[in-house]
Amino acid sequence: MNDDVKHSCGLFGIYGHRDAARLTYLGLYSLQHRGEEAAGLVTYDGKTMHTHKGMGLVSEVFNEATLHALPGRSAIGHTRYSTTGSSSLKNSQPLVVTYAKGSIAVAHNGNLVNAYSLRRELEGAGSIFQTTVDSEIILHLLARATNATFEEDLAQCVRRLAGAYSLLFLTERELIGCRDPHGFRPLVLGRLNKSWVLASETCALDLIGARFVREVAPGEIVVVTSAGPRSIFPFKDEPACRAHCFFEHVYFARPDSQIFGESVQAVRMRLGRQLAREHPVDADLVMPIPDSGNFAALGYSQESKIPFTIGMTRNHYVGRTFIQPAQEIRDLKVRVKFNPIKALIKGKRLVIVDDSIVRGTTTKARVKSLREAGAEAIHLRISCPPTKHSCFYGIDFPSRKQLIANALELEEIRKFIGVDTLGYISLEGMLKAVSKPDTYCTACWSGVYPIPFGGEGDKFALEKHAGQGCSG
Amino acid sequence: MNDDVKHSCGLFGIYGHRDAARLTYLGLYSLQHRGEEAAGLVTYDGKTMHTHKGMGLVSEVFNEATLHALPGRSAIGHTRYSTTGSSSLKNSQPLVVTYAKGSIAVAHNGNLVNAYSLRRELEGAGSIFQTTVDSEIILHLLARATNATFEEDLAQCVRRLAGAYSLLFLTERELIGCRDPHGFRPLVLGRLNKSWVLASETCALDLIGARFVREVAPGEIVVVTSAGPRSIFPFKDEPACRAHCFFEHVYFARPDSQIFGESVQAVRMRLGRQLAREHPVDADLVMPIPDSGNFAALGYSQESKIPFTIGMTRNHYVGRTFIQPAQEIRDLKVRVKFNPIKALIKGKRLVIVDDSIVRGTTTKARVKSLREAGAEAIHLRISCPPTKHSCFYGIDFPSRKQLIANALELEEIRKFIGVDTLGYISLEGMLKAVSKPDTYCTACWSGVYPIPFGGEGDKFALEKHAGQGCSG
Amino acid sequence: MNDDVKHSCGLFGIYGHRDAARLTYLGLYSLQHRGEEAAGLVTYDGKTMHTHKGMGLVSEVFNEATLHALPGRSAIGHTRYSTTGSSSLKNSQPLVVTYAKGSIAVAHNGNLVNAYSLRRELEGAGSIFQTTVDSEIILHLLARATNATFEEDLAQCVRRLAGAYSLLFLTERELIGCRDPHGFRPLVLGRLNKSWVLASETCALDLIGARFVREVAPGEIVVVTSAGPRSIFPFKDEPACRAHCFFEHVYFARPDSQIFGESVQAVRMRLGRQLAREHPVDADLVMPIPDSGNFAALGYSQESKIPFTIGMTRNHYVGRTFIQPAQEIRDLKVRVKFNPIKALIKGKRLVIVDDSIVRGTTTKARVKSLREAGAEAIHLRISCPPTKHSCFYGIDFPSRKQLIANALELEEIRKFIGVDTLGYISLEGMLKAVSKPDTYCTACWSGVYPIPFGGEGDKFALEKHAGQGCSG
Amino acid sequence: MNDDVKHSCGLFGIYGHRDAARLTYLGLYSLQHRGEEAAGLVTYDGKTMHTHKGMGLVSEVFNEATLHALPGRSAIGHTRYSTTGSSSLKNSQPLVVTYAKGSIAVAHNGNLVNAYSLRRELEGAGSIFQTTVDSEIILHLLARATNATFEEDLAQCVRRLAGAYSLLFLTERELIGCRDPHGFRPLVLGRLNKSWVLASETCALDLIGARFVREVAPGEIVVVTSAGPRSIFPFKDEPACRAHCFFEHVYFARPDSQIFGESVQAVRMRLGRQLAREHPVDADLVMPIPDSGNFAALGYSQESKIPFTIGMTRNHYVGRTFIQPAQEIRDLKVRVKFNPIKALIKGKRLVIVDDSIVRGTTTKARVKSLREAGAEAIHLRISCPPTKHSCFYGIDFPSRKQLIANALELEEIRKFIGVDTLGYISLEGMLKAVSKPDTYCTACWSGVYPIPFGGEGDKFALEKHAGQGCSG
Repeated sequence: MNDDVKHSCGLFGIYGHRDAARLTYLGLYSLQHRGEEAAGLVTYDGKTMHTHKGMGLVSEVFNEATLHALPGRSAIGHTRYSTTGSSSLKNSQPLVVTYAKGSIAVAHNGNLVNAYSLRRELEGAGSIFQTTVDSEIILHLLARATNATFEEDLAQCVRRLAGAYSLLFLTERELIGCRDPHGFRPLVLGRLNKSWVLASETCALDLIGARFVREVAPGEIVVVTSAGPRSIFPFKDEPACRAHCFFEHVYFARPDSQIFGESVQAVRMRLGRQLAREHPVDADLVMPIPDSGNFAALGYSQESKIPFTIGMTRNHYVGRTFIQPAQEIRDLKVRVKFNPIKALIKGKRLVIVDDSIVRGTTTKARVKSLREAGAEAIHLRISCPPTKHSCFYGIDFPSRKQLIANALELEEIRKFIGVDTLGYISLEGMLKAVSKPDTYCTACWSGVYPIPFGGEGDKFALEKHAGQGCSG
Repeated sequence: MNDDVKHSCGLFGIYGHRDAARLTYLGLYSLQHRGEEAAGLVTYDGKTMHTHKGMGLVSEVFNEATLHALPGRSAIGHTRYSTTGSSSLKNSQPLVVTYAKGSIAVAHNGNLVNAYSLRRELEGAGSIFQTTVDSEIILHLLARATNATFEEDLAQCVRRLAGAYSLLFLTERELIGCRDPHGFRPLVLGRLNKSWVLASETCALDLIGARFVREVAPGEIVVVTSAGPRSIFPFKDEPACRAHCFFEHVYFARPDSQIFGESVQAVRMRLGRQLAREHPVDADLVMPIPDSGNFAALGYSQESKIPFTIGMTRNHYVGRTFIQPAQEIRDLKVRVKFNPIKALIKGKRLVIVDDSIVRGTTTKARVKSLREAGAEAIHLRISCPPTKHSCFYGIDFPSRKQLIANALELEEIRKFIGVDTLGYISLEGMLKAVSKPDTYCTACWSGVYPIPFGGEGDKFALEKHAGQGCSG
Repeated sequence: MNDDVKHSCGLFGIYGHRDAARLTYLGLYSLQHRGEEAAGLVTYDGKTMHTHKGMGLVSEVFNEATLHALPGRSAIGHTRYSTTGSSSLKNSQPLVVTYAKGSIAVAHNGNLVNAYSLRRELEGAGSIFQTTVDSEIILHLLARATNATFEEDLAQCVRRLAGAYSLLFLTERELIGCRDPHGFRPLVLGRLNKSWVLASETCALDLIGARFVREVAPGEIVVVTSAGPRSIFPFKDEPACRAHCFFEHVYFARPDSQIFGESVQAVRMRLGRQLAREHPVDADLVMPIPDSGNFAALGYSQESKIPFTIGMTRNHYVGRTFIQPAQEIRDLKVRVKFNPIKALIKGKRLVIVDDSIVRGTTTKARVKSLREAGAEAIHLRISCPPTKHSCFYGIDFPSRKQLIANALELEEIRKFIGVDTLGYISLEGMLKAVSKPDTYCTACWSGVYPIPFGGEGDKFALEKHAGQGCSG
Repeated sequence: MNDDVKHSCGLFGIYGHRDAARLTYLGLYSLQHRGEEAAGLVTYDGKTMHTHKGMGLVSEVFNEATLHALPGRSAIGHTRYSTTGSSSLKNSQPLVVTYAKGSIAVAHNGNLVNAYSLRRELEGAGSIFQTTVDSEIILHLLARATNATFEEDLAQCVRRLAGAYSLLFLTERELIGCRDPHGFRPLVLGRLNKSWVLASETCALDLIGARFVREVAPGEIVVVTSAGPRSIFPFKDEPACRAHCFFEHVYFARPDSQIFGESVQAVRMRLGRQLAREHPVDADLVMPIPDSGNFAALGYSQESKIPFTIGMTRNHYVGRTFIQPAQEIRDLKVRVKFNPIKALIKGKRLVIVDDSIVRGTTTKARVKSLREAGAEAIHLRISCPPTKHSCFYGIDFPSRKQLIANALELEEIRKFIGVDTLGYISLEGMLKAVSKPDTYCTACWSGVYPIPFGGEGDKFALEKHAGQGCSG
């Protein structure tokens, strides 16, 4: 299903390392799955902020020359996907500005639900905007704050924000990480010898050989200086419920990461086992949709005792551009990525496990290619409940109309996709896979929003108020 | 181990399709694993040969504009790796020339062992050479042949060649496929409605929706014209032993392909089962080195009843260029591609399955990263025997000195790599995985060469004579 | 001398033409001489501003695809040189922002002398800055203005600016041109059928076939809407002296342009005639330093009756990058551009005419190459007085220390350059070449600044106050 | 007129200089006017030939990295234009091959008139061709020669060639220059300290500071080794008439070059003086079509006493690609390059001097733009006779049908172009401008071909036989 949902963004920052730019580049490399369409990196060398940003993959945006031109011992970086209409370079992050207190850079993962009203308010006060990203709003708020200290300005600024935000700031003095009080998006703190690292996921720490220290707490601001990290809690007087994004476990995060206190791989294995318990079937082989269904399929196989196999060959060379022949080849796009292994599939009853169904069209095409390879029966198992609702906290699902589970009943979906049986895990079953089920946002499945929305319209439609969807 | 062995080349040709260039592009796409460093495509439009070649992946070499500039109903294409000193564009294939009989293009997979002497002979007769690839020799031989018909010229030409060659020719009238009499490299014939296709592997047929007709026989020339394919057998009076490259099964070919009468995936599963029988061990988990060990690991798991898992996360974005940080990060290169999943591995006794060990350094680094992730014991199992000998038939192994199995005893290799136990499959056990074991070349393991070598020196060191290594 | 002085910027805007982007591209093409290092273009299509900017020449920055992606019936464009430290893309113009009143783009030719204090003031009020160009200051001022109408905002904004500015604004409703009250930089109004054009020089009107209507007056704001242009005079109560930049006549402007009420070519011819009267000499040939001295040399020749010739061949292919050989070739850089024609020069007494001497090193090298070609005597004539003072109004001379006329006496300069005689035109003589000599700024020669400077430091060192250097 | 005639090619070679590649790059730079569409450079470092070739200008094809990868103390280079159908990279020169005697590179300026028959002959003997350039034929002839020495092979090879050829060869031992016995194309020998240089024109010697030694004689082979140059005269027993290309003087060669024993600039001045004598007129100003008419206009002005001026401004930034607006602007293409200076031209009677008229369309457009600028009368003077015939010796004129002087009478041409009077120099008058008029080829004007043609068809239509057009 991984072509239908746009990813979240990836953040990486480091303080106090002579090779800051290259380590940030590596960190972004390992967070590439969180945003494939643009990447950016800012360093500070004691005098000047140095920036390089570009459209494309991390490996396309940076080379020896661009990294060489990013001196300094502290850095932050960002990978992003581009929502419609804002895919241009000018919207890529980190955003760097100068203001009364010097230079500052910011990178954001998430989505502010009061962006529209904040922007109108700022424009009314004479602000000009050069981008359409939330980061620029945040910087305007910071620049207009007039407290005695920068930390007070920062606390005042984040208290104005509603929605999902994990943020990194790079200033002339410090590296700062910050998570919204609900904790929608992950952010972790790590240590590499005497340097400190902030990253979206622990897999970025692993790559550079950094030690995982702890997660940044929801509502916490971590300020890293040469004295090490210290914490500010701007929301300590108004505690918010936890609302970790369960979709990070199901799909976004890398299986080798630890987020929200869990191993992503272990959660996925448990989802597969639970699926086997909820939707058992008599079959010959269990196989994943490659990568997205891997661990849930392993879990299903172990619980059901049906042998696990890898039934499709992945073409590792498939890039983002792919030229179609003039005469359409049926399901070419699906086949070019994963080719079913006929010799393995022919005459077999298969359990196919995937993480989710969004539009359903890709899944339908994959099922068809398995039928053509000779599968006798196909039983599809999905490791999350039917996805029916939009996300306002940083995930770019298709519109509700395009969500198949919103338009069709279960039996209709089964027919559309063309499988013999179809089983989604239940919401309750899914939550059993984590140790603190009441600390999660499940809005895209349950429709219960931790921060419900007002009436501003579309993406900027939500206002901050008491969250009915907040269970913990 | 897949970084240590240079791949073979990939061939694709089609006759009689209005979308010949795009289908060839797709075919090359699915054969990318056979050669990542250059790609080329030639079409014939009834009047002119059109060529586009470039360094890089198929997706980098071609775009809408370049494909648009390749009109015609017949085409051949080539993907290649670059051997040292000849990585420049001028050596990329197909090679296109004009001669007395018109225009002709040729693409070659394999290696001629009498290239050196043929070239000297041709130069002595006044030939000039613009490249260093075998294809140019073949074209000179063809141009100097003076038989009554082109087919006789062709037969005369291939009878002069010694070594491994699967060839595609595109002329102004026909598409021609040809395999050396030993059948070292694969070549298959397929059909797409009224068009005929020749390709290195069946996976290329799958992608474009073509039907697999049969393999081109060793020693057969298939000439495709508008009347369909017909066969010529230039070696019918001097039959040669079969010498299919077993390394294609072990490593080169895609698991979803069928070659040498076998499903590659099924052969690999059987190799894994045999490995489990030859080298059993008490352990908690069986896991592959991702991709290269997948099916052997599945076979090992099924035979041994030890649960299968995926213990490393693959970074799908790793490109061919990767920038190292100034300060070296230990084993970074290994970790950037596959990151061990700590939560899964910690405290476990692992069976790691891979297809081969060439230099041993990459394997050593992977083992180290698994140890750091907390593995309690690591048992390495290899689905081919120790690789000790050079290949003269189209595979670019490191020099014999760099082959670890040539330099060290088994116990020394185990210590070097740092595993608790190490087990290679036996040559006999390996050959049990195929139905006709006496039709294979096993020279890189056994040192028994089907076409033994003379004394010309290095790559061009072999001359054709009776093959002691030929068992079938 | 044209390598030593950085050019000013070029502006072009059009309102009400369906081919606005392409005509602006052409306009910029003809204004390329005013800024070679970056170019940008903004269009408005009734809904959205579309922008494309890049580093390099106009022909490098734009292509069919980029122009195609710039729809709309109104547009403004900019060519610029890059001052030190700000050569990056982010500083290229036009600058486009959204604010309370919608979208707006601005492009600037000139230099504000109160930029530093305005920026400090704005930052103190909470503004953030993403660039270091004056245009961003201007937009902040505009966004913070709170008058009843946009035109009042505009008038208030420009009244805050001190220094040299010709400005173009593109809004959702209008195209606006504006010149500072001293009129330092040119700006002309033209008409192409029903469309209106604003440009730095008339040569841009010629290229697109537009008719020259009139110059925008110093201190005038021209607002073009569908009703045609109308004028605002925000300085009508505080008239300023005229201070046209004479260096535009001497060097910057194209000879086929008309600016400040004069034909540039005719002014240069008159400068040459005056030079001949002030510094006559007995010689065989008069020749220009190609292009920069052309018309002054023609004038000198006509007045002196010494035959005119073209004594150097220009290499038209010399680009901006030029690779030096490892072993230095004497004066290569000079010779690669203009090669003396030995057969013409040998044994001749030459009068060489150029527009100015800045550092003197290029002139010295040219003289040497003429000596080597066999010139018997070389008499250098310069069509402006010795350049001794910095410019704060938009021309980027080298620092005062590097200005040869500031460091050396006339006789010393003559010796340094290696000529037999050296003659600069006098300031009085130069001013005779124009009809209204008292409307010009001559600060770089006379040191008399129309807007004298305060003490803020370097580029931002000037504050607005009564101008002692203002003669008209 | 310079857009209608494709240039010849440029050659440069150097022997015995540690900076051979960079000096060759510089030499090509100064010969860019002889071929703008591709450039190539080959060096020999004592072991290996190193090659870099590309489409585009010298400055586009080479950069620091590519030059750095061209080590060695000897080198040859080539600039070329691309004739239709062969503009691809594979046809760019120098061509490098290996053959029985080692590696050899060749670069060619000119056109063989027996290319077709030589190629057929070679193909009949089994040769294959990878390009369509004459150089490949020459290399095949050389490789098939079987004399005792390389020099005999070389002599035998060039004796087989008919037509125009200045050639450079680079071998593992020597640098070789060679001119056909008629001497159609120039080739000069120079010296830079202890190194020897061969180049198409002396301007290339000037740039690198080399001394002009002498021209290579028609029919001479100069072999440069470490012992210095020595000469071979393969045609000494069959002397051919001289047939220097007069068009080199009129248009091709750079005015600062010396070729065929004359200063190009001086020849052009004399052509202008002769024109004034043959076609006097009463006028106010003489002006050239910039660059192409410069020296003839100066000569005309001096002879006629009518003042010389520069009436158009050249846009120095005009590149080879230029984007047209959707709505056609009249004569834009003409105006973008040269803009008439209205203030100068208005009300004047002009003598316009140009080197030639080929199709006439560009000239017509220029005349029109001068009329629009207000010229009262326009008298066109052309410094060569009407161009009526094709060239078979290396110049790519339009087809005879497109040559305006072939289709129309003088008065018709005058009307078509729109001038008040039109005067071409006479053939006799033109030849007076050189000291040895009977050593020139005037075929394109007179139709008298030094090497007349047989019947093979178009470009390859000529066979070598006694030359009726050979006057000297």
